[in-house]
Amino acid sequence: MDRAIDFWFDFSSPYSYIAGEWIDALAARHARRVRWHAFLLGVTFQAAQLKAPVDHPLKREYSLRDFARSARFEGLPYRMPPVFPIPTQNAARIFWWLHETRGEEAAHGWGQAGLRAVFTRGIVPSEAAALRALATEQGLDADECERVWNDPQWKARLKQANDQAIAAGVFGAPFVVVDGEPFWGNDRKPQIARWLASGPF
Amino acid sequence: MDRAIDFWFDFSSPYSYIAGEWIDALAARHARRVRWHAFLLGVTFQAAQLKAPVDHPLKREYSLRDFARSARFEGLPYRMPPVFPIPTQNAARIFWWLHETRGEEAAHGWGQAGLRAVFTRGIVPSEAAALRALATEQGLDADECERVWNDPQWKARLKQANDQAIAAGVFGAPFVVVDGEPFWGNDRKPQIARWLASGPF
Repeated sequence: MDRAIDFWFDFSSPYSYIAGEWIDALAARHARRVRWHAFLLGVTFQAAQLKAPVDHPLKREYSLRDFARSARFEGLPYRMPPVFPIPTQNAARIFWWLHETRGEEAAHGWGQAGLRAVFTRGIVPSEAAALRALATEQGLDADECERVWNDPQWKARLKQANDQAIAAGVFGAPFVVVDGEPFWGNDRKPQIARWLASGPF
Repeated sequence: MDRAIDFWFDFSSPYSYIAGEWIDALAARHARRVRWHAFLLGVTFQAAQLKAPVDHPLKREYSLRDFARSARFEGLPYRMPPVFPIPTQNAARIFWWLHETRGEEAAHGWGQAGLRAVFTRGIVPSEAAALRALATEQGLDADECERVWNDPQWKARLKQANDQAIAAGVFGAPFVVVDGEPFWGNDRKPQIARWLASGPF
């Protein structure tokens, strides 16, 4: 059996940022590795006929409060970015470009750095200048990254990831799959921890 | 400050059944009491422009799996009722009638018995015969209960509860309010536990 854990995230997802801070360490305690997958929540929302939590009356106010509180609960810094939700296709195309050309670890580093930039420093990766600056900071070439996010090859690679997400049943983020078992949301941490520690329940 | 905890539930909510099995004991450990409030999820869904999780592609399959798994995680028996979602206005009107005529404890007992009947025995409280049988089993007079659920007075009392739910920001169930702080979902148990143990975080 494939023991790797799949971690589906969107760069605009607060709960993905939070879960991204514990998933690797939790997996490592059980001798598992984590495969990160960037995808576009908007695409899976459409497939599932959903809207973002902040696009609903009542749920919007609750969600904004819960994002920050859930981060504090995990002892994490948190800041709401000035634009939200954020279009994240460019950041996600860079993720898949790194994944295919430099390997999983490079893509993972970009994924985590991107989530932290958005939710601790208010960086908006849909703004070209901000995304170029983030790329430079991460040791990448900003011009090359801009070519990547405009390149049909990497647009197609992201589209493939979105299709795979839907095929895997993903309708929200973070979405974690362990031994074929799906767990949606940062708040499934206790269930994931038990599954890893003692198997199916 | 009002130290009582508000617990909003719908008789058709699997996560309300699960949370209903731990909320009272958790509160008691912190010398708090719980005020149960029956309401209609459908009404707050409309206010928040939401649909039930099972009414969405992808999310439906996940939710049916997660309901049962989340019950097992808490060590609880679980059974999906043959009709779902279930119209629950009649059960909720009996709740408020008990609340106003026999007090909070009687209403609480009915609430918990109803949730257990639905999610461990597959009883469908929108069926008059099933609801009458449940009432009898709970020591109530079935004819009186049927009069209650058809009585404009108790219809109005439930409507009042629904209005109060929306005013309190409720858009899903269970919805728990502690010291004015809102917590949505059975999966906020760890946050509620920390809040009760050590205050705001």
